[in-house]
Amino acid sequence: MGEEQKKMSRRSFLTTGAVAAGTLAVSGGIFGLFNSNLAKANAADEQPMFPWPYVQLDVERAKVIGYEGYMAKQCCYGAFNAVMAQLREKVGYPYTVVPSEIMLWGATGGAGWATLCGALIGAVTAMNFVVGEKSDLDKLIEELFGWYTTFPFPQYMPPVGKAGKAEGKLPTSVAGSVLCHVSVSNWCAESKYRAEGRERSERCGRLTADVAAKTVELLNSYHSNKFVPVFKHPESVGECMTCHGKGSTLENTRGKMDCIQCHDPVDSNNLLEHIFKK
Amino acid sequence: MGEEQKKMSRRSFLTTGAVAAGTLAVSGGIFGLFNSNLAKANAADEQPMFPWPYVQLDVERAKVIGYEGYMAKQCCYGAFNAVMAQLREKVGYPYTVVPSEIMLWGATGGAGWATLCGALIGAVTAMNFVVGEKSDLDKLIEELFGWYTTFPFPQYMPPVGKAGKAEGKLPTSVAGSVLCHVSVSNWCAESKYRAEGRERSERCGRLTADVAAKTVELLNSYHSNKFVPVFKHPESVGECMTCHGKGSTLENTRGKMDCIQCHDPVDSNNLLEHIFKK
Repeated sequence: MGEEQKKMSRRSFLTTGAVAAGTLAVSGGIFGLFNSNLAKANAADEQPMFPWPYVQLDVERAKVIGYEGYMAKQCCYGAFNAVMAQLREKVGYPYTVVPSEIMLWGATGGAGWATLCGALIGAVTAMNFVVGEKSDLDKLIEELFGWYTTFPFPQYMPPVGKAGKAEGKLPTSVAGSVLCHVSVSNWCAESKYRAEGRERSERCGRLTADVAAKTVELLNSYHSNKFVPVFKHPESVGECMTCHGKGSTLENTRGKMDCIQCHDPVDSNNLLEHIFKK
Repeated sequence: MGEEQKKMSRRSFLTTGAVAAGTLAVSGGIFGLFNSNLAKANAADEQPMFPWPYVQLDVERAKVIGYEGYMAKQCCYGAFNAVMAQLREKVGYPYTVVPSEIMLWGATGGAGWATLCGALIGAVTAMNFVVGEKSDLDKLIEELFGWYTTFPFPQYMPPVGKAGKAEGKLPTSVAGSVLCHVSVSNWCAESKYRAEGRERSERCGRLTADVAAKTVELLNSYHSNKFVPVFKHPESVGECMTCHGKGSTLENTRGKMDCIQCHDPVDSNNLLEHIFKK
């Protein structure tokens, strides 16, 4: 976000945010019980504050809250809560109004469908609360997603004797994808553990901690004007998108997931075969 | 949700919700400016209310708000706002605190990665605010996702002369997947329109309206105890998961996306070839 933008949102918090937080002070008092229709009418006219205020958060605490959140209510809740619980403590209102349970749904990429990794769903939703500029948000998501595809999960280690599902070191794997289905399958192939066993669950708990920590790292650096993107896309994305992506001859798809995880690789010396395949 | 659960959440709204809504009545008044530290301290100790209260919503309005939301701020915002804007109007607080911009991120499945369809991301996040029981939430997501994979998008038609990107009827296609990448590619193959052109954008705007309407339909039926799931999974999911899914011999993956969209179909008369392929 630009300097002007940042000033704007800080200013906005100093007015709207402070008044709103002050309002909460009388919650439960005698003033809390009358005139709720008027309140509704007034409130409906107002645009809610956005983005919400951010303060520097603790990366190590994000790991612990993320891991414990996974063990309590799965990956999406865990990663989301790693950011939101800290903001609830450090900023208070309006974070205190929003329960982290609103992100229960993302576990297993949604009802067992294994789409986008739930830890990522929770993480980027938390990011979105505190980053208002869409182009900046996209850069942070790009970096988080890109990092996820290349990171040897899991790295976080719970304290000895305190593991939620399985003690000790676990095999690691690189997902090469942001999809739960691929991330879990690759780890099973590498580790030989079962997809629904306690070791895989432990792996996803630790992955949640890793994702939560990276998210807080990115937000801390962004909000202190130190964010520098480093992720580069797999070659296949660039190559395939030369013909299939935006502004190309065909322009018949979109995406940044590694093409050859699902599609056959194309022999660049024999493009004609690929073109006339169907 | 069970009858007991529903009573619980209604009762909870009649107390917590009413007090909270009443509190907002004094917003901006003289009581709004003092004691904000106390408010924060009190608020940090409290568990935010969950789930949030639901009232029956208007399916046709969901289409209009969803479509207009897409044109303003893309698919994920559009579908989310189709539910939340109505709840902001009809219920008021706490919906008035949460801006629909918290779901900007899901457009294009996240920063152009084309993972889970952004309209679905927005829709199920809205669902999660008003459905507290995870097993019920999963059933509703299952139904919404399943419906999405078989529905000939787009069906919604904006009023003549009021289309955001392209007027007139558009070709339809069935995605067979909940992924943005597949959904867009299939529509491009069917329609011959370009993936980043204005017709495809129009198609996604109307799809957002369709998804928003289905979401409100599901929530209305769930909250009036009339929800009956109808979706059945593609054969491939059942067949492949016999060996690869939970409780099977291999149990080395998870997911409910149609397997043969990415993997080669297996000849059930020649399973040995498949098994020894790698």
